[in-house]
Amino acid sequence: MDSLRIGWIGTGIMGASMCGHLMTAGHTATVFTRRRERAEPLLARGAVWADTPRAVAAASDVTFTMVGYPADVREVVLGPDGVLAGAARGSVLVDMSTSEPALARAIADAAGTRGVATLDAPVSGGDIGAREARLSIMVGGDPATFAHIRPLFAHMGRTIVHQGPAGSGQHTKMVNQILIATGIIGVCEALIYARKSGLDVPTVLESVSGGAAGSWSLTNYVPRMERGDLEPGFMIEHFVKDMRIALAETKRLGLVLPGLELAERLYASLVDAGHGRKGIQALILALDRVG
Amino acid sequence: MDSLRIGWIGTGIMGASMCGHLMTAGHTATVFTRRRERAEPLLARGAVWADTPRAVAAASDVTFTMVGYPADVREVVLGPDGVLAGAARGSVLVDMSTSEPALARAIADAAGTRGVATLDAPVSGGDIGAREARLSIMVGGDPATFAHIRPLFAHMGRTIVHQGPAGSGQHTKMVNQILIATGIIGVCEALIYARKSGLDVPTVLESVSGGAAGSWSLTNYVPRMERGDLEPGFMIEHFVKDMRIALAETKRLGLVLPGLELAERLYASLVDAGHGRKGIQALILALDRVG
Repeated sequence: MDSLRIGWIGTGIMGASMCGHLMTAGHTATVFTRRRERAEPLLARGAVWADTPRAVAAASDVTFTMVGYPADVREVVLGPDGVLAGAARGSVLVDMSTSEPALARAIADAAGTRGVATLDAPVSGGDIGAREARLSIMVGGDPATFAHIRPLFAHMGRTIVHQGPAGSGQHTKMVNQILIATGIIGVCEALIYARKSGLDVPTVLESVSGGAAGSWSLTNYVPRMERGDLEPGFMIEHFVKDMRIALAETKRLGLVLPGLELAERLYASLVDAGHGRKGIQALILALDRVG
Repeated sequence: MDSLRIGWIGTGIMGASMCGHLMTAGHTATVFTRRRERAEPLLARGAVWADTPRAVAAASDVTFTMVGYPADVREVVLGPDGVLAGAARGSVLVDMSTSEPALARAIADAAGTRGVATLDAPVSGGDIGAREARLSIMVGGDPATFAHIRPLFAHMGRTIVHQGPAGSGQHTKMVNQILIATGIIGVCEALIYARKSGLDVPTVLESVSGGAAGSWSLTNYVPRMERGDLEPGFMIEHFVKDMRIALAETKRLGLVLPGLELAERLYASLVDAGHGRKGIQALILALDRVG
């Protein structure tokens, strides 16, 4: 692929790694992020700073956004100094934030009227997946745009799947989060039961990990919970954001998902108790109480 | 291992396979089961029929029980015609049913006063695991008794772990069931969300199966649910039994496990609706309704 002019908005822990991979692959980068100091490592590698998302887009063939909340996506894309105010016809906008499916569709529509193509492409795999370019990238949008951008995704992730039209990437991410939300309740409850009934947890894992009770969460979170490591791989306040997007969508779709509702309630209680910046394995704190 | 005189009580689908493996390994078998016709394939292979669990035990070095409910375990072990009424000093009783941890301890105590050693050794892996000798066998009881019986377990299973004193096998099985119960809620909710939001389910699985949302249930149950296959690998009414044992234990231990409680409520509603003999993937029927 020829060298492209990449724009990157949102250089947090994940965004900085992902943008860095594109630079390593030979693309040039223009960057903007809320706190400029977060962009310094990329600037030191030759990225160019721009003062607004609009200015980033004006300088770029493909502009990526990787920000926190749907309100942030809305502002950096649709706001007066947003990407669409600066993007040239024929350029591409790729939102890799986890955000609302309906917003992804609204952005696709607004961009389309300006001749700008879009993809919604949220990821799973966390900080480590971003650093090691092992993300799963779930993509919604036009198939031709997906085919065009796929080589760039290949520098950031290992599982890159086109899921359907605009919004489908976000919907797939919601499926991912629904699975994690309910699964981790079971992992915590099982751990609490095992401890309280006097079992040796590593020995229990030998019996249950390899069969029908097995899961990524069981294998990866129980050892952390056992050593009291509640540091974030994936932070509770971000997870709560995701679950609330999913709950709003389920309501809109006319669904009732009691497992997801339970998870949101439990995690919201952890945020209220000041644990919002711990990792999602800290759910053990909400469940480990005497009835 | 020298040829032993094996006793087997409960020759349902799993029990018949498991007893058959021991006979294939060169041990002789005496059998009893509630409906004699269920034992015919084993009798045709040379197993000897006995009219009561007591008579089975009297003819056996090691007696296995694989029956349905804790009440059945109590009757075939502790009843007037039960195993302990017939078992010789120095013989061993192995209960492989999924049953109550407290009952396992009570049986161990009652057997101990008669000079009979016991193990509680419930399994996971279902009909197929039993047939293919790939079960996970979770064992509670005296370590020396475990070492003595381990070669017999090796004919039935692949993951054979001593979990601790009497009752520990049952506790470990409860951990296994707690994990499955809550995990499958998430799998069903994710599937319902994916369908309703217009995604293609196999394509979604490509994105989410390999990462933090991945689980055995996701990989194994979604394809069955997608093709409308609700036949039992593991039957709802047995799962409800297991969850009620787990809930009674959690109460006794002073725990509150809301995910397990939710699963039990949802599955109980399926039993009420006449779906008790479907497979546990039929949970999709309880969740797939418009809110």
